[in-house]
Amino acid sequence: MGVSAKMRRSLEGSSWIRRMFEAGAELAAVHGPGKVCDFSLGNPDVEPPAQFQAALEAVVHEAVPHKHGYMSNAGYPEVRAAVAAHLSTELGVKLSGDNVVMACGAGGGMNAVLKALLDPGDEVVASVPYFVEYGGYADNHGGSLVLASTLGDFDLDVAAIEAKIGPRTAALIVNSPNNPTGRVYPERTIRALGAMLAAASRRTGRTVYLVSDEPYRHIVYDGVTVPSVFAAYPHSIVVTSHSKDLSLPGERIGYVAVHPEAEDAKTLVAAIVVATRVLGFVNAPALMQRVAARLQGVSVDPALYRTRRDRLYGELTGMGYRVTRPEGAFYLFPKAPGGDDLAFVRALQDELILAVPGRGFGLPGYFRIAYCAEEAMIERSLEGFRRAIARFAGRG
Amino acid sequence: MGVSAKMRRSLEGSSWIRRMFEAGAELAAVHGPGKVCDFSLGNPDVEPPAQFQAALEAVVHEAVPHKHGYMSNAGYPEVRAAVAAHLSTELGVKLSGDNVVMACGAGGGMNAVLKALLDPGDEVVASVPYFVEYGGYADNHGGSLVLASTLGDFDLDVAAIEAKIGPRTAALIVNSPNNPTGRVYPERTIRALGAMLAAASRRTGRTVYLVSDEPYRHIVYDGVTVPSVFAAYPHSIVVTSHSKDLSLPGERIGYVAVHPEAEDAKTLVAAIVVATRVLGFVNAPALMQRVAARLQGVSVDPALYRTRRDRLYGELTGMGYRVTRPEGAFYLFPKAPGGDDLAFVRALQDELILAVPGRGFGLPGYFRIAYCAEEAMIERSLEGFRRAIARFAGRG
Repeated sequence: MGVSAKMRRSLEGSSWIRRMFEAGAELAAVHGPGKVCDFSLGNPDVEPPAQFQAALEAVVHEAVPHKHGYMSNAGYPEVRAAVAAHLSTELGVKLSGDNVVMACGAGGGMNAVLKALLDPGDEVVASVPYFVEYGGYADNHGGSLVLASTLGDFDLDVAAIEAKIGPRTAALIVNSPNNPTGRVYPERTIRALGAMLAAASRRTGRTVYLVSDEPYRHIVYDGVTVPSVFAAYPHSIVVTSHSKDLSLPGERIGYVAVHPEAEDAKTLVAAIVVATRVLGFVNAPALMQRVAARLQGVSVDPALYRTRRDRLYGELTGMGYRVTRPEGAFYLFPKAPGGDDLAFVRALQDELILAVPGRGFGLPGYFRIAYCAEEAMIERSLEGFRRAIARFAGRG
Repeated sequence: MGVSAKMRRSLEGSSWIRRMFEAGAELAAVHGPGKVCDFSLGNPDVEPPAQFQAALEAVVHEAVPHKHGYMSNAGYPEVRAAVAAHLSTELGVKLSGDNVVMACGAGGGMNAVLKALLDPGDEVVASVPYFVEYGGYADNHGGSLVLASTLGDFDLDVAAIEAKIGPRTAALIVNSPNNPTGRVYPERTIRALGAMLAAASRRTGRTVYLVSDEPYRHIVYDGVTVPSVFAAYPHSIVVTSHSKDLSLPGERIGYVAVHPEAEDAKTLVAAIVVATRVLGFVNAPALMQRVAARLQGVSVDPALYRTRRDRLYGELTGMGYRVTRPEGAFYLFPKAPGGDDLAFVRALQDELILAVPGRGFGLPGYFRIAYCAEEAMIERSLEGFRRAIARFAGRG
């Protein structure tokens, strides 16, 4: 005994991303770390923008009494107000600080939101492929994930989502720009989604909340912008972090914004705050809250990632890989040559290249490449990608 | 609908500490904030030790690539090693970094530990009075709290705890120095507890883990030291934070240490790490991990709190309040004159003094004073305390 049976199952089914991480450590131990091309982790390799260090130093030198003490569990009022001011412009809906709760990263925010929404037995809909941790997040609060398919280009299939909504559905999670596909759902899709959710909520007699997990909002290419869910559906909640736009994933700073016209909006914010406390987060880290307030609207330059996308996308398609061109985030999600994602990821490992099989995102037959990786590594990997696909030539 | 039924009940039953906080805000609005004596919150008023600012600045100026990026979910290896080295001395059991998981404060650590240990329906034993959030923590993971009484001086009642242990018992939580009583459980109690838990585990056929929540370990007075649970019982887990010893509660930095000889120790550490990720914490904040590594063994001077304890304890006992002299933490837990803690706390509010009724800690008939408060406020409050007890003279 000891560790719970439930957690033992979790450990056994431990995520593919983690398994790849471990496989990488083994390969690195044998061949030397400089030889392994690790595309398995979404850990930004671009440093925070220059303004970050200046803001951090300013905050560190600020003379404020009890500046590392507790504040309201929702976050500092002035930080929430700064976030609200920025979001009002970005999302096209007027927000106040009362609509914002500071969170320990998007993962912390997602858990606080789901704890506020879910009763045991409730369902949360998501579209495949998806970030598998969503399943754990729903389960944390007695809920379960119900999966809908996407269209061929990985756009949301609104009809497929609709078919999954029933009286137990508390929320739909969307993630755009998407991990693992890099897809940005277009405005027409988000509008259609909003209309469908309104109709589905009437049908079931229960408001389905739209939870938009959007930490990659500012990592977009070629003039693409991410449509506002707030403009499309009032019962919306935006969850995000500064993990990607400011390259601060280790600092766990993010926030939740509740549409001011969402059903139960005020109670929902209060519930998210209580959830933040009861889950043990208590509040988002104090110092990074103050830093974030000074950097609303600042972001790393997505061109740094676009260069990598262009290079890898161009080379891989030239080699015969079939892959939807990503519009944002820093992932490629190609079809696995031969059709078996596990077999293909193992073939890549033979080339000292680490990627994550599609089944790690609920969609076998594909694999994910996280190209938030230094350009030299990308160059070094190309021959390996070429040899791997050659081994599967004519097999799918 | 909207917010879950379960969360609605939480909001309605919202903690007494929070209610006092709200009552305080109302009183401050009417009478002016400078008039209200707020003893309701355990928010350290002592600033972090001088070494903290130096360490923070050093870490902020350190040239380390990706210093705000993801690290292993367990924390930086060098930070875990620094904590382990310090704990090995403090707890008298040799630890390595592999026995330590960095956490988002003690609240984050407690949740990760309970998620690792609990299956639905499991029980966690705690002693009354207790920090009520423990109930929420157990419930988060499908468990429930079972409460044991304490002795007259608030020392643990080992026999009472033993009577609550059955086959569903996964863990016992102890908290020393204690919130709300300020009691430090003596060595003989901890030894007896260890022996009892070993026997109880044999009796039920299930190892009962001892989870020691000890953020106040370094806030102790008069030469008292906090005995090591690790020395008394191998199946022990220490959960703590730097919220009190470094006065950093807003920064959410703490850790979990698993006894190297605990049953299932290695799997348990792995499970705590997965729980940290799945709950959405992902990892303890990166920058504060590095700061904490430089400050192991550093603490605020408890004499700053002892002065307040001596003043309030001396004055209150002189007025006729009956209160156990605290040996640590920064709380007094007097008997409510008249016996009704709600009535007495309301009488204190009439004097513009805020305290928390004992029922907020599972023990009606007492009230909690958090004396982590500026000395001028303590002086200002004395007349009010005197008038309040006078109103209940001869009534209990």
